[in-house]
Amino acid sequence: MDRIRLGMVGGGQGAFIGAVHRIAARIDGKFELVAGALSSDPGRAAASAAELGLDPARSYASYAEMARAEAARADGIEAVSIVTPNHMHAGPAVAFLEAGIHVICDKPLAATPEQAAAIAAAAATSKARFFLTHNYTGYPLIRQARAMVARGDLGRVRVVQVEYAQDWLATETHNKQADWRTDPKQAGAGAIGDIGTHALNLAGFVTGLEIEALSAELHSIVPGRLVDDNAHIRLRYRGGAKGQLWASQVAVGNENALRLRVYGEKGGLDWAQENPNVMSFSRFGEPKQILTRGGAGTGGDWTRVPPGHPEGYLEGFATLYSDVADAIRGTGEAGLVPGIAAGMEGMWFIQAAQESSAADGAWIAR
Amino acid sequence: MDRIRLGMVGGGQGAFIGAVHRIAARIDGKFELVAGALSSDPGRAAASAAELGLDPARSYASYAEMARAEAARADGIEAVSIVTPNHMHAGPAVAFLEAGIHVICDKPLAATPEQAAAIAAAAATSKARFFLTHNYTGYPLIRQARAMVARGDLGRVRVVQVEYAQDWLATETHNKQADWRTDPKQAGAGAIGDIGTHALNLAGFVTGLEIEALSAELHSIVPGRLVDDNAHIRLRYRGGAKGQLWASQVAVGNENALRLRVYGEKGGLDWAQENPNVMSFSRFGEPKQILTRGGAGTGGDWTRVPPGHPEGYLEGFATLYSDVADAIRGTGEAGLVPGIAAGMEGMWFIQAAQESSAADGAWIAR
Amino acid sequence: MDRIRLGMVGGGQGAFIGAVHRIAARIDGKFELVAGALSSDPGRAAASAAELGLDPARSYASYAEMARAEAARADGIEAVSIVTPNHMHAGPAVAFLEAGIHVICDKPLAATPEQAAAIAAAAATSKARFFLTHNYTGYPLIRQARAMVARGDLGRVRVVQVEYAQDWLATETHNKQADWRTDPKQAGAGAIGDIGTHALNLAGFVTGLEIEALSAELHSIVPGRLVDDNAHIRLRYRGGAKGQLWASQVAVGNENALRLRVYGEKGGLDWAQENPNVMSFSRFGEPKQILTRGGAGTGGDWTRVPPGHPEGYLEGFATLYSDVADAIRGTGEAGLVPGIAAGMEGMWFIQAAQESSAADGAWIAR
Amino acid sequence: MDRIRLGMVGGGQGAFIGAVHRIAARIDGKFELVAGALSSDPGRAAASAAELGLDPARSYASYAEMARAEAARADGIEAVSIVTPNHMHAGPAVAFLEAGIHVICDKPLAATPEQAAAIAAAAATSKARFFLTHNYTGYPLIRQARAMVARGDLGRVRVVQVEYAQDWLATETHNKQADWRTDPKQAGAGAIGDIGTHALNLAGFVTGLEIEALSAELHSIVPGRLVDDNAHIRLRYRGGAKGQLWASQVAVGNENALRLRVYGEKGGLDWAQENPNVMSFSRFGEPKQILTRGGAGTGGDWTRVPPGHPEGYLEGFATLYSDVADAIRGTGEAGLVPGIAAGMEGMWFIQAAQESSAADGAWIAR
Repeated sequence: MDRIRLGMVGGGQGAFIGAVHRIAARIDGKFELVAGALSSDPGRAAASAAELGLDPARSYASYAEMARAEAARADGIEAVSIVTPNHMHAGPAVAFLEAGIHVICDKPLAATPEQAAAIAAAAATSKARFFLTHNYTGYPLIRQARAMVARGDLGRVRVVQVEYAQDWLATETHNKQADWRTDPKQAGAGAIGDIGTHALNLAGFVTGLEIEALSAELHSIVPGRLVDDNAHIRLRYRGGAKGQLWASQVAVGNENALRLRVYGEKGGLDWAQENPNVMSFSRFGEPKQILTRGGAGTGGDWTRVPPGHPEGYLEGFATLYSDVADAIRGTGEAGLVPGIAAGMEGMWFIQAAQESSAADGAWIAR
Repeated sequence: MDRIRLGMVGGGQGAFIGAVHRIAARIDGKFELVAGALSSDPGRAAASAAELGLDPARSYASYAEMARAEAARADGIEAVSIVTPNHMHAGPAVAFLEAGIHVICDKPLAATPEQAAAIAAAAATSKARFFLTHNYTGYPLIRQARAMVARGDLGRVRVVQVEYAQDWLATETHNKQADWRTDPKQAGAGAIGDIGTHALNLAGFVTGLEIEALSAELHSIVPGRLVDDNAHIRLRYRGGAKGQLWASQVAVGNENALRLRVYGEKGGLDWAQENPNVMSFSRFGEPKQILTRGGAGTGGDWTRVPPGHPEGYLEGFATLYSDVADAIRGTGEAGLVPGIAAGMEGMWFIQAAQESSAADGAWIAR
Repeated sequence: MDRIRLGMVGGGQGAFIGAVHRIAARIDGKFELVAGALSSDPGRAAASAAELGLDPARSYASYAEMARAEAARADGIEAVSIVTPNHMHAGPAVAFLEAGIHVICDKPLAATPEQAAAIAAAAATSKARFFLTHNYTGYPLIRQARAMVARGDLGRVRVVQVEYAQDWLATETHNKQADWRTDPKQAGAGAIGDIGTHALNLAGFVTGLEIEALSAELHSIVPGRLVDDNAHIRLRYRGGAKGQLWASQVAVGNENALRLRVYGEKGGLDWAQENPNVMSFSRFGEPKQILTRGGAGTGGDWTRVPPGHPEGYLEGFATLYSDVADAIRGTGEAGLVPGIAAGMEGMWFIQAAQESSAADGAWIAR
Repeated sequence: MDRIRLGMVGGGQGAFIGAVHRIAARIDGKFELVAGALSSDPGRAAASAAELGLDPARSYASYAEMARAEAARADGIEAVSIVTPNHMHAGPAVAFLEAGIHVICDKPLAATPEQAAAIAAAAATSKARFFLTHNYTGYPLIRQARAMVARGDLGRVRVVQVEYAQDWLATETHNKQADWRTDPKQAGAGAIGDIGTHALNLAGFVTGLEIEALSAELHSIVPGRLVDDNAHIRLRYRGGAKGQLWASQVAVGNENALRLRVYGEKGGLDWAQENPNVMSFSRFGEPKQILTRGGAGTGGDWTRVPPGHPEGYLEGFATLYSDVADAIRGTGEAGLVPGIAAGMEGMWFIQAAQESSAADGAWIAR
């Protein structure tokens, strides 16, 4: 299919999640980034656009201008990724939805209920669609888990334990990422918004259950912190299942320890994001099974590489390609990329192994 | 930088490693696939090219024609990926090297010593470069390990234990992947070529050691198999280090269990490919350390996402983008992609959590 | 030192925890079981006593009689283990304490507050001591953890996550163990008493923190169950630390999944009972360390075998001794115990390995 | 049954394996240690005997005297444990076998072939039995594995990978344990004798296969070491299975990393000693199963505690008993043993949890 013409709001130099969105958009070759309002700082916006090879005419100073201009072009963007801090989602989301351009928006939806309502209203009336990147739902085993719950492998779900623990905010921290996330105005909330919503969404995605009520205790543990950085939450799901949710950004020793456990009448599931190609599944009274992404006993959908190759396999591969590109362009040496010598060594290995084996294990010199 | 114009030989519909190469080339946006001789079957070649959106004029029936034609174009390819079975590496590699086009070739180098020598000769005289995709060397922690050995963290290396175990050939197996890999003519060797060379290369890459000699025993365990499917090999490295290598395609329960352990005078390293974002490092007499990709105590080079997000994180993200693209193009429903409802639920979660917490944990209904 | 003369109340044939207490008392050779009121069923009491080799005169029909009689003997018991269901702790505990005999009592203390108060009163006035077998505090790494918190390795404790998950009561279950544990009268409570108290105790033992308040939700998930079988509890510790506790007996796929995580200002600890010889410890900003029982970086107290030999090593060893005893007594064959043939094979192995190695790896036949 | 009267040769103060044998003999209460020749140093022998509570008349200066004297007593020992260095096995083994006393001997059998032959000859003619403590065969899951192979769960065994890695001899080391183990005269061999024989024995025990031939390379890696400290060995089993064995005492970061993997036509097993209560089992084409000691899908024989309680559970329990004994005898404080306060806290926890839950999660103060 033709690549979808994509724009981006936010994601200029120094941003983290914008770069992730761009890679994600490239992996399957279905999108082409052609326009952007990459930064509220004009200089940074232009520099970022140049680095990404955007047509300077399509590097905009504001999302509003971008929405207007792109909607007017015959070859205008069909979709836009919004990768700004939370309090800057609503403006562009509404503008692009109103312009009939599909919106792919980072989570959480917004910083305030009012902003969220505005987006919802625009989404309800736009012919364009709105997508929210609760990206953990894209892991193959999470979709596998959802399918297993849906088809009854666990029986009725009874207990949900979900947690997302980090430690990067265990002390007072100041940098581009931390600053807006710990500012009540820009973020709207702390750990519960930044990672708690992921945990909540993941549990709902896999179980298919709807929230009935919650009971929470939020903590601001680091002295002086203005948003929550730890949260202990109980959940009641419609139909009777009970949940416990923990979100923390002060749990020393945790990087992105998102973990979901679901227990039903007949079975239990356990998945952790940091080793996402593996999930355990237990049927009551039977040995625990280890399911691998695309491996025995799973559907194998949503995978790009065979079982046993973690998904990061593609990135390892890509690093070689990247080094090669740099070498070809003269911006790098590709000094770590195997070349003809490695190939000849491999050939020697094969022959020598065959020769040694034929000679009862005689040592063959290189 | 401008994208590098890339061609591909092999990798048509039904192939595995060709698709991997294409994704790897896309991830960092440094290449653009513009030409191909994707299959020796003309119909499949054309269909594959169409699927990839190649200009039909640049979908060639043979690599020879492709090398000639592309070398003659002003906008001809600058590099080519060769992703054919082993015995079909030498032909295109030589042709493209002679045409001055950089070659990115899958491993092992070739099926026979003669083919390997031909490639080496062409590489020696070409102005173009030759790269071999021993892709496991692209994992960030492997490059980290190499750097640690090089700077002396382990002291002089004494013992190397490397293994690559699979089970997909544990029985007589017939399919596109298995057929050429178990045919001595097409593959040249069995497990030692297909995965043993990876193990050997990885050990050498990390330790920087050169092979002095090997002693091998190859086994063809499955009745009727014409190539080795299990290998027990001892290695002697220059300088005195000793190695043990195991390659197997009949080890039931293993998917792609490549594991490298390196022991030196002062320290030891342990890394396994199936969870590649984690590596253990022990200094003699101190507690084992768990190093994570880009995490505390590592350099953080060669990573695209922060610690704790396994590299597969990008693919999970990409799956959402892919679903969104399908929805926009009308070829899918994006039924699994979170939308406005998920966003509103997240907003409720944040507010409800704050309200409940302020009320000493009172239950807040949805 | 002389062995302490020990009695036991409960623990007759078919009981579980009584046998555990007896083994625990034997391991270090500091106790000798010499008396018992092993069952409320006289026949079972006598048979159990005979099986254990007790003097029939010291096998009692009731704990009351036992307390009286043993207190009167010059060689009477010095201590008694009480291993009855919860509602039968108070009677014997009070009786033995009043008789001046030390009490080692299984947990929880009692089935009702009244019973607990009676024990506390007796303990307060007795010259004998009262011990409660919150046995998980005996794991070497738990004592190590306690010492680390106490000496400030984690800084001030902020967050405590503790859980104990089982699945053996995931369905309606009837057997000797389940029956009293799910009977409100005998047990007093369900999961919170049986395993939740362990979790609570462990968290307090390691952190040294005192409970200030709790907020709980108890669930009786299996239809018809009269006690709680799942519990979601929030804890407030004096000094400000926050805790989350989960106890479940319906979490399919969990056997005895007791896990404690403690997060402080400077560090975090993670320990799980099912692999108790390993604990992770993270200092903020440094790689996670893997501490092993008695291994590098730990004190090595409280261990009987060196690092790397899990504590179960002793039981494996004991199994050989047990088989040997059975063979000597003619009640078994010791068919699985290695004998002279295994020894001779080992000797061959040593010599053959030396000979082969001296001959550059020549194969040496057996 | 009556306890078996046991003697011990070696195992005096400062010894490691003697203490292990004594604990192993006590755990199931089937032996009573009544005599010993605990050290070749008379003073240490006497002191050791006193510490163990032996009758001084039965603490002997030599094994020869002990064999003579005990054989002459009506209540003489029925069995003897020999826990001396390797070169001192043969003397006592022959003496006790000739005296009609069962022998439980530590491994390897002896330091030289001549010594081994002498033991074998004595064993062949004695009415007493000879047992060799290849103790790893006593792990429940190892016996489970053996049963699974025997009943055909794996099909015909094809490949055996066994390894035993330590690091305690990674540098030149001098202490009681290291000195005799690195002395060719006392030990007869290095890593291959001390741990390689365990690996070999374990592989044979589980697979039931007999060795046909081996090919070895032994290394003395630490400068000046007179015995092997690393070994790379290939094995051929009768019937065609192939094996690879690695033994090392210089692999930094390994404590007692004994691991066995067995691959057959239909299935594969993976077990590691450091977490011995867990074993993975894969049937070809099915998800990997995690078998736990006594857990679902296993026989449950040879276990003393239920699944999920690692075998070390008993030692944790025993530590409490030991502390209690010390407190009762006045040689310790039992300061870490929970008492009435812990019990009362547990009772509060139960009530408070019930009360809070009944009040919709209201906080209940302690």
